[in-house]
Amino acid sequence: MTSRDRVPGRVALLSGGVGGARFAAGLQAALEPGALTVIVNTGDDFTHLGLRICPDVDSVVYGLAELSDESRGWGRAGESWHCLSVLAQLGADDWFALGDKDLGVHVWRSDALRRGSSLTEVTECMARRLGVSSQVIPMTESPVATRVITDEGELAFQDYFVRHHGRPRVIGLRYEGSDRATIPPQVTSVLRDTQLRAVLVAPSNPFLSVDPILAIPGMRVLLRSSGVPVIGVSPLIAGKAIKGPLTAMMDSLGVERSARGIVGHYGDLLDGWVVDTADATESVNVGVRLCVAPTLMSGANERLALARQVLAFAGECADG
Amino acid sequence: MTSRDRVPGRVALLSGGVGGARFAAGLQAALEPGALTVIVNTGDDFTHLGLRICPDVDSVVYGLAELSDESRGWGRAGESWHCLSVLAQLGADDWFALGDKDLGVHVWRSDALRRGSSLTEVTECMARRLGVSSQVIPMTESPVATRVITDEGELAFQDYFVRHHGRPRVIGLRYEGSDRATIPPQVTSVLRDTQLRAVLVAPSNPFLSVDPILAIPGMRVLLRSSGVPVIGVSPLIAGKAIKGPLTAMMDSLGVERSARGIVGHYGDLLDGWVVDTADATESVNVGVRLCVAPTLMSGANERLALARQVLAFAGECADG
Repeated sequence: MTSRDRVPGRVALLSGGVGGARFAAGLQAALEPGALTVIVNTGDDFTHLGLRICPDVDSVVYGLAELSDESRGWGRAGESWHCLSVLAQLGADDWFALGDKDLGVHVWRSDALRRGSSLTEVTECMARRLGVSSQVIPMTESPVATRVITDEGELAFQDYFVRHHGRPRVIGLRYEGSDRATIPPQVTSVLRDTQLRAVLVAPSNPFLSVDPILAIPGMRVLLRSSGVPVIGVSPLIAGKAIKGPLTAMMDSLGVERSARGIVGHYGDLLDGWVVDTADATESVNVGVRLCVAPTLMSGANERLALARQVLAFAGECADG
Repeated sequence: MTSRDRVPGRVALLSGGVGGARFAAGLQAALEPGALTVIVNTGDDFTHLGLRICPDVDSVVYGLAELSDESRGWGRAGESWHCLSVLAQLGADDWFALGDKDLGVHVWRSDALRRGSSLTEVTECMARRLGVSSQVIPMTESPVATRVITDEGELAFQDYFVRHHGRPRVIGLRYEGSDRATIPPQVTSVLRDTQLRAVLVAPSNPFLSVDPILAIPGMRVLLRSSGVPVIGVSPLIAGKAIKGPLTAMMDSLGVERSARGIVGHYGDLLDGWVVDTADATESVNVGVRLCVAPTLMSGANERLALARQVLAFAGECADG
C-alpha cells in the first residue's frame, strides 16, 4: 500500500486484548504511521510469580508488531514453553501459560517497574523496541483490578478467566481502584489533539475490556468533549461473541445481545455503531448512526478493509 | 552398580560450581543414596533483572540431577534462549546468559524468597523436585558477596567473571558480609553426625569458591572438630587449571601453583590432598598425606573412579 492510500488524521482506539489487538492492527495499516493511539485496558493486569503481567497491553503490542499467534488467538507466534515446564516441575503455579518469549517481556517490565519506570514509559519503550509505529498507552498508571462477581463468589479476573475458563455465571463486575485512578497525560493529550478525527471503541468485551477504561473518573467526559465522532464496533456476530465468555455474560447480566443492547449499555458515549452484516436486519432503533460491515477479521486483508470502512463511517458521522 | 558397591557412611563436600558439581555427581554415584551433603558457595549469588541467581547452587543441583550441559561446561543440557533474545531486543542487560529452562528456576526461586522462604528451603525443594537424592545446602542464609579487587578496581564477582571474562589481574578478594554470616543448622548437623566419614573439598577455585565458605565465622573450627579426615582435591592438572581464571589468579596473588601452594593456602584445614597423576612428581613437602589420582573427570566413569579413590584415601587417613 502506498502512503497515498493511507487515511489522514489521528485516531484514538479504546481496546482490550485479542479482538481489540486485531482491529488495532487493521487501523495501523489503514492510517499514516504514528497516527494511531491505542488506550488499553489494564484491569486484567496481575502479578504472577513476582512478574507483572499486562495481558491486554501485550496482546495489542504483539498484534501491532505482527508477532501474535493468529491461530491460537493469544500470545506470540513461534512460542516455546521450556520455562513453564520447569516451573511446573518445581511445583510453581502453572495455570497461566507463560511462553519463553512472552517471559522476556514480563521479566524486563517487572524489573523496569521495580526500578521506578512507569507502566506508560515501559509500554512505550516495549512498543518501540518491537518495531511498532503506533502509540500504545495503558489506560492509567493507577492500580485497577477487574473483579468478577459470580455465582461461585467474587473472583479476580484471571481466576475467573484463566483458572475457571470463564465458566462461572457472572452476576456483576467491579473495577477495584478505578475510583482513585487518574487519566495519563498522554491520553488527555491525544484526545485534545486538533488532528484527531475519531475515537473508536474496539470490538472487545464491553464489561471486561471497555468498561474498566470508561470507569476512570473523567474519562467519559474527556471522550465526549474530544469533538470527534465516537464510534464503536460490535463484538457480536449473529448475536454471539466469536469466542470468550461475552455471550453468556450478556445473558446473565441482562444486556440484550443486540446493537440496541450494547449501545444502550454504553449510555451517551457513542455517535455511531458498526454491526456485522449478519446482524444488519436485527439492528433497528439503536439510537445512534449505524454502519454494516463484515467484522470477522480473519486475516490482514479483512482487518484492513474493516478499518477503512469504520474510518469512512467516522468521516460520515463527522460531516453530520 | 549394586548397592553393595556403594561406599557406606555420610560425606560432606565443600563445593563451588562446575568442577565441584562434577565431583559431587561422582560422589553421589559412589555413596549410598542420601549419604552426600554438598555445602555450596553462595558468594557468587546476585540479583539480575529482579531474579535471584545462585550459579554454584544451580550447577551443583543440575550436576547431581544429571541435567548439566557437559560440553558447554555450564547451565542445562538442551537449553534454549528465546527469553534472552527478547530481553536483548527490549534493551535489557543480556551479558548474563539466561536459558529458558534455567529461568524456570530463577523465577520460581525469586518468587519463593520474596514470599519468605529461606534459600536453604528453596534449595532443598529444588533438589528434591529435580530428583536429586543428595542434600544440597547453601553455605549460609546471610548475604555474602565475593568482591574481586583487580588492577581495574574492585568488581562484583559476576562483573569480573562474566562481564569481564575473568581477564582483569586479581590483586585480592573479599567476601562482603561474611563477618556477619552464620552457619545454617543443617550444616552443623551434618558435620556433627556420627555417621560422617569424611569432609571433602572439591577441586573448585580456592579463592572464588572455597574461601567464601571458610570465611564464615566458626566454619573452620566446625570442620576441624568434625573428627573425620578433611581431604581436598587439587583443581590443578600439570600445574594449571583446566579452565577459568585460577591459573592467572594464583600467579597474581603469589600462591605457588603446586600442591604445596594450595595446601599452604588452606592453612590447618586439611589432613590429605589429592593431586593429579600429572603433578605426582612435583608434589613433595606438602605437609599433609598425599594421594595421586587421575582428576580430569571427563565422564561419569572417571567421576565415579575419582570419587572412589578419594573416599578410599579418606578411609586410609581415618585409620591413621
